[in-house]
Amino acid sequence: MEYEGVSPEHGAGSLRRIKLTLAYNGTNFCGWQIQKNDRTVQQVLQDALTALHKHPVIVTGSGRTDSGVHAIGQAAHFDTTLASIPAEKFIPALNTLLPEDIRIRKSVEVPETFHARFHAVEREYRYYISLLSENNPFTRPFTHTVADMPAVRLLNTYARIIAGTHDFTTFSAAGDTSKTKIRNIGSAAFYMEKGQLVFRIKGNAFLWRMVRSLVGTMLELAQKSESPEKMLEILNAADRRFAGTTAPAKGLFLYRVSYA
Amino acid sequence: MEYEGVSPEHGAGSLRRIKLTLAYNGTNFCGWQIQKNDRTVQQVLQDALTALHKHPVIVTGSGRTDSGVHAIGQAAHFDTTLASIPAEKFIPALNTLLPEDIRIRKSVEVPETFHARFHAVEREYRYYISLLSENNPFTRPFTHTVADMPAVRLLNTYARIIAGTHDFTTFSAAGDTSKTKIRNIGSAAFYMEKGQLVFRIKGNAFLWRMVRSLVGTMLELAQKSESPEKMLEILNAADRRFAGTTAPAKGLFLYRVSYA
Repeated sequence: MEYEGVSPEHGAGSLRRIKLTLAYNGTNFCGWQIQKNDRTVQQVLQDALTALHKHPVIVTGSGRTDSGVHAIGQAAHFDTTLASIPAEKFIPALNTLLPEDIRIRKSVEVPETFHARFHAVEREYRYYISLLSENNPFTRPFTHTVADMPAVRLLNTYARIIAGTHDFTTFSAAGDTSKTKIRNIGSAAFYMEKGQLVFRIKGNAFLWRMVRSLVGTMLELAQKSESPEKMLEILNAADRRFAGTTAPAKGLFLYRVSYA
Repeated sequence: MEYEGVSPEHGAGSLRRIKLTLAYNGTNFCGWQIQKNDRTVQQVLQDALTALHKHPVIVTGSGRTDSGVHAIGQAAHFDTTLASIPAEKFIPALNTLLPEDIRIRKSVEVPETFHARFHAVEREYRYYISLLSENNPFTRPFTHTVADMPAVRLLNTYARIIAGTHDFTTFSAAGDTSKTKIRNIGSAAFYMEKGQLVFRIKGNAFLWRMVRSLVGTMLELAQKSESPEKMLEILNAADRRFAGTTAPAKGLFLYRVSYA
């Protein structure tokens, strides 16, 4: 390892906070958050940082992703005692230690008050849907497959109802412990890209499994050619029993986390 | 299964030969050819065909691919007793039964004299190379990673030497039982595509591990900035000891098999 010779320099004065942007293929991870006996992104990342620092390092993510959910632009921060490593050198240093299904994309020094979770102002998710007949074995595992491709125009009549500030109780999961189910969605839209249907949603924060519940519900409504009023009714019900089946994890990507 | 109700109709008169074009992610396969106790493409495909026909079906491929080698356009044939299935319907029928890492892309009826191996006139392989710093966890596992990207222009001075009819003994593998090591290469070239280095080679046939041996050798020559004369010398030596390290399987794709 290139940085093996670098000795940790302890002492408050030498601590620097580093913000990482990372991508991962969630297929073989039990989600982001550390769990006993399970392979998680946070655990694997902390193990690599600990190996690099030769002392335990804690990583704080922008938020959890569920088992099987992927990331293109997850964000996280940690404090380093390695005074002589330029921030960007954590990219090759960590990627050498990490398995191929996690890759560090960016590494920058941030003020010591920066917090990956509390300071995130917008999160963007993308959900990929393809036809059952999709025959590319390299991309198909990262999409939810459906028998018939619903009309993008119809789906967007539902998606427009999501945008704005609403009580999203209908699209929350059993066991969600959030104090409030009110969230602000900046934009939500479906579009076609390279033969796949993509749902892009941006918001300040999301309830647990909210994106997958929204996608599953809208796909079901489109199948039945329901009117957008039906979607409004379901949202306003503020009752989980009105939601459709939660769409599978494998189609969901945490695409970007933005900071002020 | 959609075709469960279709009864096999036996008798020579009802046999039709079907040509399949298929793609597979070779990561979790021990290559194409059936082996006891190993997961192979041919075995998994025959199992699906056997389940569909309710009697054993044999599949003949255009050629073997090694453990870990991928395919975009492998070709194969089999004879069907299912008289009432239109050829193209084998696509959804098989894809429903197959695991996600094999996908049938095309299915057409061919004359009963067609042979996927003997009648193939050209095979095209592509080999993908990326930098160690490649940070896309979804595409990186399908490339061979190198510390420095060699100059495409230099690599092509070597590749031009391969084109034509030569004795490729230098690039054969130990244990190759081919009667002759002479092969005819129609074209061989490197080019950049989406930040990756690609080696594309077309020929009537290839020796076992020949493409990977060629790639490994040329990458080593480029690293040392060797002249094309060195490549010519290695080829003319007709001696395996002159070849470089065989490049890993994960970067190799059987891209297309052409028939007259």
